[in-house]
Amino acid sequence: MTRWQPDARGRLEQAAMELYLERGFGQTTVAQIDERAGVTERTFFRYFADKREMLFGGSGQLQQLMVDAVAAAPTTATPLEAVGTALEAVGDVFVDLDHSRTRQIVIDSDASLQERELIKRERLATALTTALRARGIDEPAASLTARAGIGVFHVAFVTWIAAGNTRSYAEIARELLDELRAITRPH
Amino acid sequence: MTRWQPDARGRLEQAAMELYLERGFGQTTVAQIDERAGVTERTFFRYFADKREMLFGGSGQLQQLMVDAVAAAPTTATPLEAVGTALEAVGDVFVDLDHSRTRQIVIDSDASLQERELIKRERLATALTTALRARGIDEPAASLTARAGIGVFHVAFVTWIAAGNTRSYAEIARELLDELRAITRPH
Repeated sequence: MTRWQPDARGRLEQAAMELYLERGFGQTTVAQIDERAGVTERTFFRYFADKREMLFGGSGQLQQLMVDAVAAAPTTATPLEAVGTALEAVGDVFVDLDHSRTRQIVIDSDASLQERELIKRERLATALTTALRARGIDEPAASLTARAGIGVFHVAFVTWIAAGNTRSYAEIARELLDELRAITRPH
Repeated sequence: MTRWQPDARGRLEQAAMELYLERGFGQTTVAQIDERAGVTERTFFRYFADKREMLFGGSGQLQQLMVDAVAAAPTTATPLEAVGTALEAVGDVFVDLDHSRTRQIVIDSDASLQERELIKRERLATALTTALRARGIDEPAASLTARAGIGVFHVAFVTWIAAGNTRSYAEIARELLDELRAITRPH
């Protein structure tokens, strides 16, 4: 039986993560990543624009996934339910808990990566707002719903990657959306 | 009657805003700000660490104001009502609509200032979460409430500075908090 071999792209990503954890993100060079991955010099740049891009390459796809889910939600869905379908879609791609935990350790270790993460989340909020407006939701409801939804998206992620958690992202997000409804219910 | 004269600090802030609008934030030097304000060279640095600091100097106070309001909310207040008292407190300081509009034009014109704004908002969310936890609110309710509240804080600000608006920040924030309750109500 042949042991499964990750392709060059996968090997580069794995090598980069190992090095970031060992030496720090800022202290790791692209040459070191190529070497650790066992690929020829500058192969890195065949797949990624730079080190940051490697960590955030999936952001655009994630955003598109959420926007498409909002657009495809049943016409009878409330704005918050439409955001709920976007969170379900995220649950389909947030499945590799180990990878997400490692990636977050790297991001938390570097201020420029944390800034990039905030920019990514802000773009997501804007994209969701636009997607809700396209469903005929007026302002300020569209912005408020998108931002409350991004709050759930973020808290669900933190809960999902927390030490000891074994529940799925989708399950956590569903529960937090209900919790948000409970929080905002007048007493 | 003597005409009111802003102090050196006030003159520097006004001079800086004028120059940012005329030449751009990145193209304006501290020496130019000193000159326009009619103060001696390097007076700027008696009041501000750098150009960014001048624009974000009030962030720490705003955060403390909101945290104090959450802490001082009646014990009977729900988590969202406690956040509501923080938004009321913001309404007491967000009163100079012209200044806030100009400041936002400057921030929107420069990517590094936009990043700083996102960091400020993220810190605010974390501080509000901590303040809610101190009231005995468990996770994930504390984080979810803080982030939904920061969503209202932000959308209220955008609505407040929008062209043509004349309503107060506090009035808008109150209305948006009710709107959030309506959005999250199950149908």
